[in-house]
Amino acid sequence: MLRTVVISQTLLEVGQQPNGEPAQVPVITVEGAPGGPNVYLQANLHGAEIQGNAVLAAFLELCRAQRPKGTFTLVPMANPIGINQKSGEFTLGRFDPISGENWNRQYHFSNADLDAFCQAHLNSDETTIAAAFRERLRAQIAQRQASPWGLKTGQTMALRLQQLALEADIVLDLHTGPISDRHLYVPEYARARAHHFNIPLNILMPSDFGGALDEAHFSPWWQLSQRFAELGRTLEVLVDAFTLELGPQEHLDPAQAGRDALGIGRYLEVMGCWPEGTHQVEEEIQHACQLADYKALYSPCGGQIEYLAPLGQPVKAGVPVARIWHYERLGQDKPMFTEVSLPCDAIPVLHFASANVQEGTELYKFLTHTFAL
Amino acid sequence: MLRTVVISQTLLEVGQQPNGEPAQVPVITVEGAPGGPNVYLQANLHGAEIQGNAVLAAFLELCRAQRPKGTFTLVPMANPIGINQKSGEFTLGRFDPISGENWNRQYHFSNADLDAFCQAHLNSDETTIAAAFRERLRAQIAQRQASPWGLKTGQTMALRLQQLALEADIVLDLHTGPISDRHLYVPEYARARAHHFNIPLNILMPSDFGGALDEAHFSPWWQLSQRFAELGRTLEVLVDAFTLELGPQEHLDPAQAGRDALGIGRYLEVMGCWPEGTHQVEEEIQHACQLADYKALYSPCGGQIEYLAPLGQPVKAGVPVARIWHYERLGQDKPMFTEVSLPCDAIPVLHFASANVQEGTELYKFLTHTFAL
Amino acid sequence: MLRTVVISQTLLEVGQQPNGEPAQVPVITVEGAPGGPNVYLQANLHGAEIQGNAVLAAFLELCRAQRPKGTFTLVPMANPIGINQKSGEFTLGRFDPISGENWNRQYHFSNADLDAFCQAHLNSDETTIAAAFRERLRAQIAQRQASPWGLKTGQTMALRLQQLALEADIVLDLHTGPISDRHLYVPEYARARAHHFNIPLNILMPSDFGGALDEAHFSPWWQLSQRFAELGRTLEVLVDAFTLELGPQEHLDPAQAGRDALGIGRYLEVMGCWPEGTHQVEEEIQHACQLADYKALYSPCGGQIEYLAPLGQPVKAGVPVARIWHYERLGQDKPMFTEVSLPCDAIPVLHFASANVQEGTELYKFLTHTFAL
Amino acid sequence: MLRTVVISQTLLEVGQQPNGEPAQVPVITVEGAPGGPNVYLQANLHGAEIQGNAVLAAFLELCRAQRPKGTFTLVPMANPIGINQKSGEFTLGRFDPISGENWNRQYHFSNADLDAFCQAHLNSDETTIAAAFRERLRAQIAQRQASPWGLKTGQTMALRLQQLALEADIVLDLHTGPISDRHLYVPEYARARAHHFNIPLNILMPSDFGGALDEAHFSPWWQLSQRFAELGRTLEVLVDAFTLELGPQEHLDPAQAGRDALGIGRYLEVMGCWPEGTHQVEEEIQHACQLADYKALYSPCGGQIEYLAPLGQPVKAGVPVARIWHYERLGQDKPMFTEVSLPCDAIPVLHFASANVQEGTELYKFLTHTFAL
Repeated sequence: MLRTVVISQTLLEVGQQPNGEPAQVPVITVEGAPGGPNVYLQANLHGAEIQGNAVLAAFLELCRAQRPKGTFTLVPMANPIGINQKSGEFTLGRFDPISGENWNRQYHFSNADLDAFCQAHLNSDETTIAAAFRERLRAQIAQRQASPWGLKTGQTMALRLQQLALEADIVLDLHTGPISDRHLYVPEYARARAHHFNIPLNILMPSDFGGALDEAHFSPWWQLSQRFAELGRTLEVLVDAFTLELGPQEHLDPAQAGRDALGIGRYLEVMGCWPEGTHQVEEEIQHACQLADYKALYSPCGGQIEYLAPLGQPVKAGVPVARIWHYERLGQDKPMFTEVSLPCDAIPVLHFASANVQEGTELYKFLTHTFAL
Repeated sequence: MLRTVVISQTLLEVGQQPNGEPAQVPVITVEGAPGGPNVYLQANLHGAEIQGNAVLAAFLELCRAQRPKGTFTLVPMANPIGINQKSGEFTLGRFDPISGENWNRQYHFSNADLDAFCQAHLNSDETTIAAAFRERLRAQIAQRQASPWGLKTGQTMALRLQQLALEADIVLDLHTGPISDRHLYVPEYARARAHHFNIPLNILMPSDFGGALDEAHFSPWWQLSQRFAELGRTLEVLVDAFTLELGPQEHLDPAQAGRDALGIGRYLEVMGCWPEGTHQVEEEIQHACQLADYKALYSPCGGQIEYLAPLGQPVKAGVPVARIWHYERLGQDKPMFTEVSLPCDAIPVLHFASANVQEGTELYKFLTHTFAL
Repeated sequence: MLRTVVISQTLLEVGQQPNGEPAQVPVITVEGAPGGPNVYLQANLHGAEIQGNAVLAAFLELCRAQRPKGTFTLVPMANPIGINQKSGEFTLGRFDPISGENWNRQYHFSNADLDAFCQAHLNSDETTIAAAFRERLRAQIAQRQASPWGLKTGQTMALRLQQLALEADIVLDLHTGPISDRHLYVPEYARARAHHFNIPLNILMPSDFGGALDEAHFSPWWQLSQRFAELGRTLEVLVDAFTLELGPQEHLDPAQAGRDALGIGRYLEVMGCWPEGTHQVEEEIQHACQLADYKALYSPCGGQIEYLAPLGQPVKAGVPVARIWHYERLGQDKPMFTEVSLPCDAIPVLHFASANVQEGTELYKFLTHTFAL
Repeated sequence: MLRTVVISQTLLEVGQQPNGEPAQVPVITVEGAPGGPNVYLQANLHGAEIQGNAVLAAFLELCRAQRPKGTFTLVPMANPIGINQKSGEFTLGRFDPISGENWNRQYHFSNADLDAFCQAHLNSDETTIAAAFRERLRAQIAQRQASPWGLKTGQTMALRLQQLALEADIVLDLHTGPISDRHLYVPEYARARAHHFNIPLNILMPSDFGGALDEAHFSPWWQLSQRFAELGRTLEVLVDAFTLELGPQEHLDPAQAGRDALGIGRYLEVMGCWPEGTHQVEEEIQHACQLADYKALYSPCGGQIEYLAPLGQPVKAGVPVARIWHYERLGQDKPMFTEVSLPCDAIPVLHFASANVQEGTELYKFLTHTFAL
């Protein structure tokens, strides 16, 4: 029996540049032992969010160290257009520079005819349902790709990635924030498993579709589960999908990447890829809140920002979290700064990457009404 | 009795720049004779779309030439942040350069509690309903502005403009396309009046909300009308709102602006602002299609574009509309270009402003399944 | 004897993208009959200036139609980073988006030790001098490439292109203006040959180095000629180099490209590549001025521009060339526009690509104190 | 006698935006006691470099705490166009977004007719020379501003600032680096005074003009001194000018700003503004090198960067300063990273602000061949 893991790489074309160069994405396949899930891990769909690549590299080492069960597809450097798009010194990789559309809001989802599907499979077994439902997802994407009117740049890329991802039982999409602590988006139904990732800040999401990769993968299966339930049939949500935000953008921290790979490994132990206890992590305190309680704070005025509230540390209502300086008032008798505080207790998750802001710039995001995960 | 029209200007603050400068918008009020509607005209919310300002200038001359009935609010240069935002030689004014969000998708709309409102006013007269409904819209916006978490830059601007616009019976939002023929977005219920604008290409829209200024103004009143109809009460849609796309961006054509001001004048004659026949225009042939038949064509590959289909002129299915050159193939044996044609007959409305495109770039937009307006 | 021309393509790496993709440039070699010059033609170093590629394609057809004497190196799509760099709808390919440095100002030039070279070759024959001088240029570039501190992105690209170009006797660099008539930069010493290109507007340059490709090639040879002259030895300038600006950016016009290829063909007839009279062009009127008389007009204020002076047509001193509208004054009593005129007669060569400008934006460029070429 | 310092603010127009808004800069005047120098302090000419404003605010407090001798002009927020220009989350304020030209390379300098000036004033006293030379500088700038062809946006701004600065005996221009330790550009002739600023890293410059504000002010006076010396007359350089780079861009650190204001205060003690010993600073170790030894390191390939060398700490030749990761190689057998080291010992001054780079991106800048200041 084969004891060592087999790792291979191919290239996926996800678009074409004006100069004819293909936009290519490396796709790494890890063939583990039989009996485990199909796992899809993607990183760097937003061009500046490079840390996830380091996490994938560390995760691949875990696979080499001890052969997992299952098949793993690793997609680092997922957005060649976004990664290569500079604007000033920084990477303008969050949205299409032509249209402004967020690269992570262009995946496909449709629940048309879900009712008919459920009626037809009311008495099918789980394996048959899963296979038929995947075939349906494949067909929907193929149909969109066949449009005689073509597809947008972002859709072209998203759908080619989604064709890989939809084969998986588990989808992990690795992102980062701007200046950011590590945080995790958790679909409500998967809450019990989320703490294994060992990520300190967690946002519990309803299971609807908003265009992102995680939603594009869990929403159809969650809706399938819901519709069956309405028809009196019990079917678990057969796919897990999470978005992991693993620190700040434009930054590479291989040591932290190693720790986060261990967290992913521990979550995958529970999903059957390794024996539980294979990967040891130093447990972190984990806070959570509902998505509706995950609040952005927008600047009440323009100015230069002194960020006062350290990320990850609870801050009380009414305590200043930012001081907005007005240096144009130098030599005048007006107050030199405006302080901003919150209407409730909160934990800062991330803050804006620049200290120079307009009225209405998103200064911070906070967990509010938190609880233990 | 006052025979001459009274024109005045004030400045509206719609934001604050990082250096403390207010972002200010000129607001011109034209006090016409009593008995006419309240009309709101806005231009240049997208920074590169400057032609609407020239139309407003020409329209103001019409008001000076013959005093209209009604009150007019003219808002040129509506987006100081977008107008002043350069990126290379061009104006990057279509979306917020920080977030990528389209400036014209941030208006407020909510139909919460509409049912309760209709129940409460089932037997009120039209004037009472209109006043109460406007008060409700004002209160909704004021509530959002009072959020302790602040508002995004684009929302801050949009809501301050919307506070002016919601007082109007007629809202006209002047935009342009990229390289574009003149075209008009017509809410279905206002179809009979649309031809007076004398705009050659017309898109008939369902009356739902999508975030744009026109929708933000007609949708609530259309939904009010629909809900009353369900309750057995007839109430016309009390507000008209149109988006006019008056040629190409980054371009100023005062002569055409004069003609389009006349078209607006003619539409406003029908709405009671002037005697019909006051403004003479040379009638243009007017094509229309449904919004679902207004189709974008995306490039099937990267390359350099030769745009073949003249704007405004019908093109047959299967006839090439664009030739995509592949100059990187020079000296190879491959075909030097790819031709793109359509699956159905169509009329080109606009095309992309650059000849250098990626796979998935929007090359053209077309009316299909057209009919006379 | 071989009658047909041999055409082949290779790829030149000129950089590497963040995602590891090489930045590659196609290099087409045309092996003509022996006895002619070595000719280097490059296009699209500025990303938005795509028309030169079409000229190279048309020129290659001329080579196929009748085998020329000499060796030709055609480099279309010369700047993969600039071509693929979008910013909004347009191609931000004029300067490095990180540093702002113009891609066409990074070529190598040094006249260190020129005196020693001339002394050493005072009595060498022309062929020996040319070979030794080329070897010296090769060595200078190789030395810069070998720096242990590395090279800037733009220098890396420029030097790899320059290594090809320095082997040539004739260097033609194809550019475009923004909104532009066709114009030609002519080194003073090559003035007599310039009219063969049949380009209507011409700028005569002193033969110093400013960083551009044409200068990087003619300056060393011109300085060599000058230094020898000071030492009493006559040596002609052995290299010709021109920058051709063939119309507007972001635009493709294959028909005009065909005509401009004929002009290049006619110039190359004079240089020995074809019999004179091989290529027929309809002669255009050709104006010229000195570089010091090639004047930019900067906007005296911010506003929206109505460009009044048609390109290529003489305009008199004092006649308005642009009307700058101030739509923020609508409803005020101030003048609605500022008109700009010139202090002397002139011919407009190009104007800015946007109608929305700041104080100080370059509105137009003009030939002044013109004469027939 | 007046004991308290008089502080006032006016606004200087340095341009006009497309929407008609003036681009305005606050100019603060501090009237100290008579007998001291005229001092000009400017901050934030590059839009992202906001820390200098905080230093000016802290410096103003020093003036309030103890009235200085002399007149002080403080210009915070010096570039309203650059400060308000966003591109993605960051401030694209280093160069004009239209032309790519660095805002700090557009000041005026001309040494035409310097010889005639020196001949004419060979026997004048120092006060007469200084007054006449300033008048000459004023006249040169006025002449450029009077051009019938207008001025570029950056020149318009630079010349209006320069008109204020040229009246000063001391010019301090406050900048920052990208991710940067504090460093100082020192004109060679002013070396003896530089250590008072207490800035750890120092670059000694020759006294030529390169377009920056400091050079625009010391170069003319230095050349005047040199030319007089050639004519046998001794005249000291009558103006001091320094560029201070006070940490990283996009960042505000009021505590460090306070310490740097003290350093400026201590330098100004030596120049006669306060009694020596007024301002106490904790002395830092100060390294220096010649400008020719201030070396940029460019990336030898594209990739994701792990910056290894801490800023301000000496690093040995051959020791890796950066690890460039190639995540596109994941699952291949190639090395996952490239390490870069230096050919000589060095002290890292600053590094690039992004971890995602092209071949040729400036990774670091280093002092080499250092000595104590």
